[in-house]
Amino acid sequence: MNRPDPELGPAPTPVRRRIYAVVFGHDTRAGLAFDLCLMVAIVASVLIAMLDSVEGLHARYGHAFYAVEWGFTVLFTVEYLLRLWIVARPLRYARSFYGVIDLLAILPTYLSLLVAGSQYLLVIRILRILRVFRLFKLVRFLYEARQLSDALRRSARKIFVFVFAMLTIVTVFGALMYLIEGPEHGFDNIPLSMYWAIVTVATVGFGDIAPATALGRMLASVLILIGYGMIAVPTGIYTAELASGLRRGARQRACPRCRLRGHEADAVFCRQCGAGLAFETPPEPQSR
Amino acid sequence: MNRPDPELGPAPTPVRRRIYAVVFGHDTRAGLAFDLCLMVAIVASVLIAMLDSVEGLHARYGHAFYAVEWGFTVLFTVEYLLRLWIVARPLRYARSFYGVIDLLAILPTYLSLLVAGSQYLLVIRILRILRVFRLFKLVRFLYEARQLSDALRRSARKIFVFVFAMLTIVTVFGALMYLIEGPEHGFDNIPLSMYWAIVTVATVGFGDIAPATALGRMLASVLILIGYGMIAVPTGIYTAELASGLRRGARQRACPRCRLRGHEADAVFCRQCGAGLAFETPPEPQSR
Amino acid sequence: MNRPDPELGPAPTPVRRRIYAVVFGHDTRAGLAFDLCLMVAIVASVLIAMLDSVEGLHARYGHAFYAVEWGFTVLFTVEYLLRLWIVARPLRYARSFYGVIDLLAILPTYLSLLVAGSQYLLVIRILRILRVFRLFKLVRFLYEARQLSDALRRSARKIFVFVFAMLTIVTVFGALMYLIEGPEHGFDNIPLSMYWAIVTVATVGFGDIAPATALGRMLASVLILIGYGMIAVPTGIYTAELASGLRRGARQRACPRCRLRGHEADAVFCRQCGAGLAFETPPEPQSR
Amino acid sequence: MNRPDPELGPAPTPVRRRIYAVVFGHDTRAGLAFDLCLMVAIVASVLIAMLDSVEGLHARYGHAFYAVEWGFTVLFTVEYLLRLWIVARPLRYARSFYGVIDLLAILPTYLSLLVAGSQYLLVIRILRILRVFRLFKLVRFLYEARQLSDALRRSARKIFVFVFAMLTIVTVFGALMYLIEGPEHGFDNIPLSMYWAIVTVATVGFGDIAPATALGRMLASVLILIGYGMIAVPTGIYTAELASGLRRGARQRACPRCRLRGHEADAVFCRQCGAGLAFETPPEPQSR
Repeated sequence: MNRPDPELGPAPTPVRRRIYAVVFGHDTRAGLAFDLCLMVAIVASVLIAMLDSVEGLHARYGHAFYAVEWGFTVLFTVEYLLRLWIVARPLRYARSFYGVIDLLAILPTYLSLLVAGSQYLLVIRILRILRVFRLFKLVRFLYEARQLSDALRRSARKIFVFVFAMLTIVTVFGALMYLIEGPEHGFDNIPLSMYWAIVTVATVGFGDIAPATALGRMLASVLILIGYGMIAVPTGIYTAELASGLRRGARQRACPRCRLRGHEADAVFCRQCGAGLAFETPPEPQSR
Repeated sequence: MNRPDPELGPAPTPVRRRIYAVVFGHDTRAGLAFDLCLMVAIVASVLIAMLDSVEGLHARYGHAFYAVEWGFTVLFTVEYLLRLWIVARPLRYARSFYGVIDLLAILPTYLSLLVAGSQYLLVIRILRILRVFRLFKLVRFLYEARQLSDALRRSARKIFVFVFAMLTIVTVFGALMYLIEGPEHGFDNIPLSMYWAIVTVATVGFGDIAPATALGRMLASVLILIGYGMIAVPTGIYTAELASGLRRGARQRACPRCRLRGHEADAVFCRQCGAGLAFETPPEPQSR
Repeated sequence: MNRPDPELGPAPTPVRRRIYAVVFGHDTRAGLAFDLCLMVAIVASVLIAMLDSVEGLHARYGHAFYAVEWGFTVLFTVEYLLRLWIVARPLRYARSFYGVIDLLAILPTYLSLLVAGSQYLLVIRILRILRVFRLFKLVRFLYEARQLSDALRRSARKIFVFVFAMLTIVTVFGALMYLIEGPEHGFDNIPLSMYWAIVTVATVGFGDIAPATALGRMLASVLILIGYGMIAVPTGIYTAELASGLRRGARQRACPRCRLRGHEADAVFCRQCGAGLAFETPPEPQSR
Repeated sequence: MNRPDPELGPAPTPVRRRIYAVVFGHDTRAGLAFDLCLMVAIVASVLIAMLDSVEGLHARYGHAFYAVEWGFTVLFTVEYLLRLWIVARPLRYARSFYGVIDLLAILPTYLSLLVAGSQYLLVIRILRILRVFRLFKLVRFLYEARQLSDALRRSARKIFVFVFAMLTIVTVFGALMYLIEGPEHGFDNIPLSMYWAIVTVATVGFGDIAPATALGRMLASVLILIGYGMIAVPTGIYTAELASGLRRGARQRACPRCRLRGHEADAVFCRQCGAGLAFETPPEPQSR
């Protein structure tokens, strides 16, 4: 890395540049080793938080877990402060996505000194694992993730309409079931009935609350059929957008004159300016 | 709004025109403020109905909820009468979709004077929220909603066939399970067995009723596999129609020389023979 | 109907022809009335069988239900014999789909004289309702049904592979869960464990049997994720075939020389013999 | 089979060649009979293992089952040794997919002498049934299976991203639910909460553990809606890839004169300009 990284500031000392390359970079051997150690530490720390919540293990190894947990927290705190110190604009890093996650990953342990139980929140550290995508320079994986999220973004507006319709249905059915079944069959109040309606319409069906009257069961059947039919809607939206995205990806040739893109696979002339298109190798990079 | 609105009648007085613009319109500052207040009032009133159904809150704030509820009801009644009075043809408004909803939204409170409990029905007010789509002039959202409902309408006939097949299956399996399991395992009668069959075939599975004999479980497994396979059907129908709708939006013009179809929305020249395309009205913009 | 129906035989008497038109036809006023009465009788008889299974109603109206039930059965028996008598080849009708259904619809009542409880089987009469499709000459509905079943037939082979894979998974997981959880947690034997595996993999989840050990829960999680992912497979297969069927429906122009069908929407020359294709109105009948 | 099979070695004796044809081949009458016997033996042996796990049957027929089980195991052991002996490179066979399965299918019975209960593991024999695909030379079925697994392979990377996202969500929600609900409502520890989160997000919903606090239920509703929406993702990915695979099969040739692509598999002339198409190897037959 010869050119100064904009994140590093205009004239970094060689030491700062070196630390930066280790902590933030993925290109040098030291940077890669740092990233790998970080990943291992994150996974280990999350696993320990999980195991610590199991009563039998907590009783036997509670003290060891506690010590290791503080060890990891101190380590991550040092790392966080290092990151803050090394970048040119600490505030900007602190407010970035990874900056916030890095802070949230160490806070719970300190909070646990004040509030009992909050140390379990540190499983939020698992979110730091998202760095793994950057670490391995998984360009291809990121490409896949981008395709998926592109389709999600294009279908977001349709899905919003769908969620809106669903919430309306859940509210109306929740209120009706509260009226019909009532507290004596477990539908204690409307918010609880709405929770039941969500559980039912999404075809989860815990069964902790279930209708017991004939009318309630008829209404539940209607709600179930709506939910069963509505499974179609987000799937249909998303699939149609994803398929349209895959097709669009294939047609990327640019016109040599007007630079228009998006020609069909069989196009010979530019549809915009009429210039002949060079018939290069058919694209077909498609989704892999 | 200079031209008289057909809903307002041929020669409205300026006062009527003004009130109409506030109550029905979304263009003036006053009309927008009115709509926003209405939305807030609707949501607040629904929330209060929900909270009132929670026993603890009802015991403590029941009287306040009751008062606020009546306040909202009087407000909505005044608004309903205002709407009835201002339009040229009150009966037509009263029978329109929003007219019926507006009436249903105030009836339950008055009914609660006669029938205890019916006041909870007023969560039907949530349906009034549908006006929000018109309020923000969410042309794009409405366009999305139209695409979704278009696909739904085109697939309605196929889905009817599907529902018919499903009901036949549910009836036959319900009767068989009643015969096999019988009242001793909770399958008290055929309608209840059919309810169980619906819960099962839609993969909800509350578990309040479950087969207990070997034969009953085998039959349940068959029903489950049918349901698991049939999830495909509405999804497949809907997706195929939605995708076909997205595609149809794009290709509507034919080349005058070579008759090639399937040109992109922005095409000026035929991509096959280079002839100029008549640039007619652009087809519907695709879903983004 | 001037030309003799092949089902009716070569030289029917006018009486036979008339009875045939009433019982089998849907074109004459009398035939339509007969069909409608039949539908009402079928639905009424199924509803009575359902209501008779409800204990309270059985105690009160049991005798009336019994009488009505026998009335319907005698009616349907007469109708069945009439059909047998009127057609030229009774055996062929008796072995046809509707012939078998018609017989099955009357058998249970007679069987109930020998075996108690078997009268509930007559809800199988609901299958006779399938005639309704023919009754209303719902050409369009039948077209939709044909599209759906065409796609189902084309995807049958792929779905067979899928079901085969699923059964293998269910067998292996069922055996493993029996080993891990054992009878003390409700997994009494391998067939029961396989039933649980089907209930779980299809995301039904009754909860009458649920794993209680840590290892069992881990295995259940894996099975759930497989099932969640496999929901994709039949849907994907069916959707792809249905969409391909909808597309194929649009290209139906025949070559005037070699009668080849299946030309693309933009074809100008027959791809088989090179003859020019008349550019008729674009098909696009599509799914509506 | 005149030419020596590479698996059989360069110069096999006639006896070895004959045995090889029976055990590995499917072309001779003897080979086919051997394969059929094998299939029946496998299914019979798996069925017996299942039935043996049913308490009532075990008590009555336990000894007979035990004897038959050992009979099958000896048979399969002989077959396995025969296969090892007949092939030119035994180690290569032993490490192949079918070699491993064949070994796993006999090990459990021998293990049951040492460890009680392990004999039930032999339902793994069901995997040997996969040979059935080869037996009937079900080229078409295999073609279908290949299409399905091709689409699966192409979508594997996207599905990995999806599973990664899902596991992160499950971890975070599992920890939060443990904090909110705690052991008093059945959420004993974080791993158990994560199991609940998987059961919930996949819309299975056993109901053995269910949230009981208002906050827990709100969080569960959010998780359910995420799961309900995420059902879309693997389905969408898989469907899009499968459809793209079906399409790709059809258009592989370009017209030598006008460069039009997308010709049907049976096209002889370009549908656009009428030029003769070079009839190269026909592309893969579409999915039927």
